[in-house]
Amino acid sequence: MTNKQDIRSDDIRSIVCASILVALVLVLASAFFPRKVFAQPALPSWNDTAAKSRIVDFVKATTTEGGEGYVAPEDRIAVFDNDGTLWSEQPYYFQLGFVLDRVKALAPQHPEWKEKEPFKSVLSGDLAGVAKSGELGLVDLVTSTHAGMTTDDFNRLVTDWFATARHPKTGKPFEEMTFVPMVELLQYLRANGFKTFIVSGGGIEFMRPVTEKLYGIPPEQVIGSTITTQYALVDDVPSLRRLPKIDFIDDGAGKPVGINQFIGRRPIFVAGNSDGDYEMARWTTGGKHHGFAMFVHHTDDVREYAYDRKSPFGRLDKALDEAARRNWLVVDMKADWNRVYAFDK
Amino acid sequence: MTNKQDIRSDDIRSIVCASILVALVLVLASAFFPRKVFAQPALPSWNDTAAKSRIVDFVKATTTEGGEGYVAPEDRIAVFDNDGTLWSEQPYYFQLGFVLDRVKALAPQHPEWKEKEPFKSVLSGDLAGVAKSGELGLVDLVTSTHAGMTTDDFNRLVTDWFATARHPKTGKPFEEMTFVPMVELLQYLRANGFKTFIVSGGGIEFMRPVTEKLYGIPPEQVIGSTITTQYALVDDVPSLRRLPKIDFIDDGAGKPVGINQFIGRRPIFVAGNSDGDYEMARWTTGGKHHGFAMFVHHTDDVREYAYDRKSPFGRLDKALDEAARRNWLVVDMKADWNRVYAFDK
Repeated sequence: MTNKQDIRSDDIRSIVCASILVALVLVLASAFFPRKVFAQPALPSWNDTAAKSRIVDFVKATTTEGGEGYVAPEDRIAVFDNDGTLWSEQPYYFQLGFVLDRVKALAPQHPEWKEKEPFKSVLSGDLAGVAKSGELGLVDLVTSTHAGMTTDDFNRLVTDWFATARHPKTGKPFEEMTFVPMVELLQYLRANGFKTFIVSGGGIEFMRPVTEKLYGIPPEQVIGSTITTQYALVDDVPSLRRLPKIDFIDDGAGKPVGINQFIGRRPIFVAGNSDGDYEMARWTTGGKHHGFAMFVHHTDDVREYAYDRKSPFGRLDKALDEAARRNWLVVDMKADWNRVYAFDK
Repeated sequence: MTNKQDIRSDDIRSIVCASILVALVLVLASAFFPRKVFAQPALPSWNDTAAKSRIVDFVKATTTEGGEGYVAPEDRIAVFDNDGTLWSEQPYYFQLGFVLDRVKALAPQHPEWKEKEPFKSVLSGDLAGVAKSGELGLVDLVTSTHAGMTTDDFNRLVTDWFATARHPKTGKPFEEMTFVPMVELLQYLRANGFKTFIVSGGGIEFMRPVTEKLYGIPPEQVIGSTITTQYALVDDVPSLRRLPKIDFIDDGAGKPVGINQFIGRRPIFVAGNSDGDYEMARWTTGGKHHGFAMFVHHTDDVREYAYDRKSPFGRLDKALDEAARRNWLVVDMKADWNRVYAFDK
């Protein structure tokens, strides 16, 4: 028999022991169970509509070992268009905003621009006039503002621009014009073993300075259009100079080419919003795995913009026609998202 | 006071309690301490010479928070040449072995090759004759054997070749001709937060099918020379066709260009073995971080080969001259490695 003193001492030991056991179980549980067990529900900015269910069902099938739709982690490659898919592309591509600001900044060194299109239209704020200059005019604008400096200098120009420039409609910094549901989707895919890439028609070095911050995507997972660069020693210091020559347009049929060149594997998930993403959707859904394709349909003229078949930026026509037949998901921004931007209430 | 029975019961409780505590401490320790604390010494196939010390010192400085040489994990980019750096390049580039075998396999469909150089020399086993055909002849050989099929088909050809072809000197499968100390170095860098890339003059799609298996490097971290590919629908099935046109030569001054295009960050570690790696060594060691460059010097004509300034494959001349002045490490294969291949005793 034990006396009261002993019983109390035993009790304390038992309590201590039990506490340690509970702590041990918790530590082991947190170490061995996937984090998502304790996490928030996935995709909180997505309404509980069919769109969300289809995404979640695909990811579950992909990650269920032994299941028919299982895909090994190394093959879980997800590619995302950027303009109009991850951030807004209205009233014009953000990179065009950068071009316009660069033309204005460089104008004092180029008095001839006052009389020369498309620079004249840019300087007088005539966007329709800029559009009239066509593809050649646009190439002229890009090479005049994106070339003739080192890659390091260009990186700085872009970084500085993002730090100060504002969206013409919302007045917010461009960096805040990313779609929250899509950033959640990137995170959700990564949490399920996917490696996420951007595959955009935009300039590769225009996106890379900000993609890690905005999307958690490092520079080496960003594919885009490129201009030719050249290695040279300047005062015996190695540098890479950007030449006024388009090297590769990562759009339309260029997207599967870019994907193959940079990634070397066929994706199993693709998100886009325009016909420029049609070919990479075909490529992604045409492989041995049953790839998943989705298109963001801009249907929300209150929180963002409503446009598709007739927009000069991000025209969605052919892909919209074929989506149902090809079992591609069309996301109805207005109905499927309860939030667009982080600054929305 | 307690009786013997109680003492024993208390003892058992104490022992159980202590055991749980020890287990808890071990679990917490393994969770919170870096794995390397319990691991084998790094780089076992490297002798304890200055070469190994310099590598280890650099990695320690890079990973010591608060230290002068500290580099944040996202900037720990390491690039490796492949031919002569990660695997052998003698008596000729392995990819040339693939070309020779392809020419022989395709010869029945090309009776004209019997009279046409450089094919004639290939078919008669006259490597000197092949060399005489120069760069244009080589381009002809490459485009004849590397183009005209889909990327998927080419991947299969390469995979099948590696499964059967043998090294002309050792008789081993080419996949076994990788340098164990370099594979250890890749692992060591990755264990210290580095992201490892291959930056090779070799064909990107010749390397990608095997780099994960041989080096733990996934396809998207392999940069190499490319030929032009084109997206097309064949019987309404999307495909990427390899065209007989060189797109990009990832060698010499092309290497910093390729690094910038694919990675978008300047590396802080580079390993090469020839003058083709000179420019990427300059680029790596010319940034804001004190980048580390090393060159494998082939000094071992017993276990591998001994060559440098006069070799047609992997000529090391200028980089060897400048290494000391630029503080680049020259690894003496014979003295610094206690093992070359995994099949060595």
